[in-house]
Amino acid sequence: MDKKAAVAGMEMFAGLAPDKIAELAAVAEVRRRERGRVIFRAGEAADGFYSVASGKVRIYRSSPSGKEHILHVFGPGAAFAEVVVFQGGVFPADAQALEDSELLFFPRRGFAALLRDDPELAMSMLALLSARLRFFVQKIEELSLKEVPARLAAHLLLLHSAQKKMRLDLELPKGQLAGYLGTIPETLSRVLRKMADDGLIVLDGQAVVLRDVERLEELASGQKNL
Amino acid sequence: MDKKAAVAGMEMFAGLAPDKIAELAAVAEVRRRERGRVIFRAGEAADGFYSVASGKVRIYRSSPSGKEHILHVFGPGAAFAEVVVFQGGVFPADAQALEDSELLFFPRRGFAALLRDDPELAMSMLALLSARLRFFVQKIEELSLKEVPARLAAHLLLLHSAQKKMRLDLELPKGQLAGYLGTIPETLSRVLRKMADDGLIVLDGQAVVLRDVERLEELASGQKNL
Repeated sequence: MDKKAAVAGMEMFAGLAPDKIAELAAVAEVRRRERGRVIFRAGEAADGFYSVASGKVRIYRSSPSGKEHILHVFGPGAAFAEVVVFQGGVFPADAQALEDSELLFFPRRGFAALLRDDPELAMSMLALLSARLRFFVQKIEELSLKEVPARLAAHLLLLHSAQKKMRLDLELPKGQLAGYLGTIPETLSRVLRKMADDGLIVLDGQAVVLRDVERLEELASGQKNL
Repeated sequence: MDKKAAVAGMEMFAGLAPDKIAELAAVAEVRRRERGRVIFRAGEAADGFYSVASGKVRIYRSSPSGKEHILHVFGPGAAFAEVVVFQGGVFPADAQALEDSELLFFPRRGFAALLRDDPELAMSMLALLSARLRFFVQKIEELSLKEVPARLAAHLLLLHSAQKKMRLDLELPKGQLAGYLGTIPETLSRVLRKMADDGLIVLDGQAVVLRDVERLEELASGQKNL
């Protein structure tokens, strides 16, 4: 296996400069796992993360009764177990090769040493992840922007009829409210701001003051868009 | 301003341990900008990134004719310019306070020194960003999983009628194809895998071999789901 090519093909590292790819390839170990072989077990120390160079891996939880619940299936280019390895801790689930697979293993210690010796690598990785997050936030907004204003308007009207006043306490932390409305906090904030800019509501710290119940009703019923 | 509280309130750092928050607060500088004041200009060296503690900031591009195009509006908790600062380079757009605002400024050099001195901080940040990415990927899948299989099936049938064979060349890199279908590469890969598992297609490197045109047609027309 060409380790550098395999590292360059990882979504997580896509776009890193060739010298950074070479540094990462130098700490990565090639591990071959035949179809059916276990890669790690839940509860084992998360001493490194993996990526799939070829083949397919499943991550699953086994119940005491032997029932298995598949959490993810990863194919070429995907990293797995990186979150728990970055955080430190134990693997939260089992991993098994679904096909004969070639994996790259990045030992936590070697990876941490690399970040210490080359803070620019850490910055580059943070840049990549941040840029992808930005892009994903935008994508989620595009996908949910049709529906979230209507759902939010309906939710505000519900609170209004329950609290019997114009100044509403949202009752839920923003993250939970976003989840309840089927979106993410970034999109929720944006929709709240848009509603405020359009004169439907006023934002006052954690409170929302209703300004135009009629237009909120039109929004909630789908007659109008934001 | 309570710097530590402001750092802890940043989405980017949400969930970091108190000692990491304290380290970050120690390198952050408080900058107050009155409504209308420019924070940075496109073309200036990106010597640090910002977060909004209170107030509102807009990021915009100005054309030579003086026309302005707003790219983002950021409110409390949001970081801005972090991607370009992590990458190194110059600010790609202008930033201006839309309200009297309190900002935190994280100088690039101080931030890089922190990552060098405490690689665990880098790992924690990578863990946070990776976990959010995972979550966002899942969210995008939930939001687009109803429509992407139908769109992909329609696209494969289109290629099939153009290329007049069962073994299709996808013609576009996966990232572009994902964008074309209104989703992200992660979701596209998942849908392709699911189609393969269900016997509709066979994946062979960059090629897709059609196995069940009838079911693909049902999928494309919305008569069946994947």
